[in-house]
Amino acid sequence: MARILYGKEVSSALWERLLPRIDRLRAHGVAPTLAIVRVGERPDDLSYERTCARQADLHGIAVRRFVLPTEATQAELEAVIDAVNADPRIHGCLMFRPLPPQMDERAVCDRLSPAKDIDGIGSASLAGVFADTGEGFPPATAQACLETLDFYDIPVAGKRVVVLGRSLVIGRPVAMMLLARHATVTLAHSRTADVAAHTREADIVVCATGRARAYGAEYFSPGQTVLDVGINFDEAGNLCGDVDFNAVASVLGEDGAITPVPRGLGGVTTSVTMAHVVRAAEVALRR
Amino acid sequence: MARILYGKEVSSALWERLLPRIDRLRAHGVAPTLAIVRVGERPDDLSYERTCARQADLHGIAVRRFVLPTEATQAELEAVIDAVNADPRIHGCLMFRPLPPQMDERAVCDRLSPAKDIDGIGSASLAGVFADTGEGFPPATAQACLETLDFYDIPVAGKRVVVLGRSLVIGRPVAMMLLARHATVTLAHSRTADVAAHTREADIVVCATGRARAYGAEYFSPGQTVLDVGINFDEAGNLCGDVDFNAVASVLGEDGAITPVPRGLGGVTTSVTMAHVVRAAEVALRR
Repeated sequence: MARILYGKEVSSALWERLLPRIDRLRAHGVAPTLAIVRVGERPDDLSYERTCARQADLHGIAVRRFVLPTEATQAELEAVIDAVNADPRIHGCLMFRPLPPQMDERAVCDRLSPAKDIDGIGSASLAGVFADTGEGFPPATAQACLETLDFYDIPVAGKRVVVLGRSLVIGRPVAMMLLARHATVTLAHSRTADVAAHTREADIVVCATGRARAYGAEYFSPGQTVLDVGINFDEAGNLCGDVDFNAVASVLGEDGAITPVPRGLGGVTTSVTMAHVVRAAEVALRR
Repeated sequence: MARILYGKEVSSALWERLLPRIDRLRAHGVAPTLAIVRVGERPDDLSYERTCARQADLHGIAVRRFVLPTEATQAELEAVIDAVNADPRIHGCLMFRPLPPQMDERAVCDRLSPAKDIDGIGSASLAGVFADTGEGFPPATAQACLETLDFYDIPVAGKRVVVLGRSLVIGRPVAMMLLARHATVTLAHSRTADVAAHTREADIVVCATGRARAYGAEYFSPGQTVLDVGINFDEAGNLCGDVDFNAVASVLGEDGAITPVPRGLGGVTTSVTMAHVVRAAEVALRR
């Protein structure tokens, strides 16, 4: 049975480093503040919003909500983004996506100030992750993977990593972040011929395709580390990852490691989002 | 012996498609114009500048040179970029890099208008390649690889590609472009443990590490396609690629294919640069 990489420990360590920084900000009269921009009332968005608000509240980060109806126009949403950009008391902005079809999502993302783009959705942040330009922030989920590997002392440099899934939220950015840390990175996806042939040879596998329990024992080998980014629901309505946890944890064996779902990377992602707000507030204070 | 993928045929086909477009632009009173910005007198830069100027001249593209001394300041170079951005008669800009150490290269690259960034050096272009945002242009060398594969009818979708080298000029962008075309892409580099174990399993290998004849027969298998992006000089002063051409061409066998150096991707890169100038001029005309 593999070692289980719970997210709670990673988050606790993150918060331990964050709390004195939040105290220092408050001592300077700065209340680190996250703007949450939501269009419509999708249950997933509402659920993540509640999680963020609870975490923020617990640790002294303020949250300001900007909610628009599903039928809002591009101009209305852009006015909200402009207000967020202009308000010096807001340090970071989390905007739920996808936006409704009448909106130009790329234009909205690029309108957000890179300094406040704590979820890495704008072109400046994307270029930052791709090219190490230092601008913006990496997507929180991608950074949560790195934080988890680091917390559990799992080396990355020189290791073979296979990333399943090539989305801009996780697959491509986590691949670039692992590459910057000197991993040999393979990006596999729905068009990859023999996925298992790739994953079985890896040291670390990041599963981020959003397909419930799609990857079973036959995809893995003893001693590997598996990061399961999936947040899915099975037919019975139970939360589960992209990996068939029990079968895979057994194949990985004592030298292997795996993140569970729930209680894995999800919570780390929230903590990383908050850490980005704190960093954004610190940078704003130094200006 | 592998099929040799000469660049000349690829370039000729590109020019055949470009010439009527250049004629149409001229019929509208537009002379497609490339600005070349150079700081100092590095022999490599001067040589590529001559190649570009010759190709441009031959096909009706105008070239305007902006040359600064090595000791130029950031402000002086930025003034040149601003002038290029402001001049409606300039459609694309090629700036040689690296810049001298007193300059902030990222800031200069990001100052260039994405609409004129025909070599894909600014953050908007980088995000364009990483995230398919459609902004800017991909780096010419990376696109030259795709043009060559397409011209010679070498399929990419579903194929295993190994890219050796992770630079922003070629390794990372060509990996993203091949990924967008549905290849399964592995990025390998100086910290990769067993490079040959990766390359031998690939359908297509892109060699872009800039190490003269570093990859010999032991890295390859019959039937593969090898794109050699290297432009190096051996001890005897002869131009050569990253691949030991004769040994590798023999291993690849009749079903394999390889680009030579010289007479390979270099010329295609120049043609792609010119194609980007033409496209930039067309977009400017439509505005």
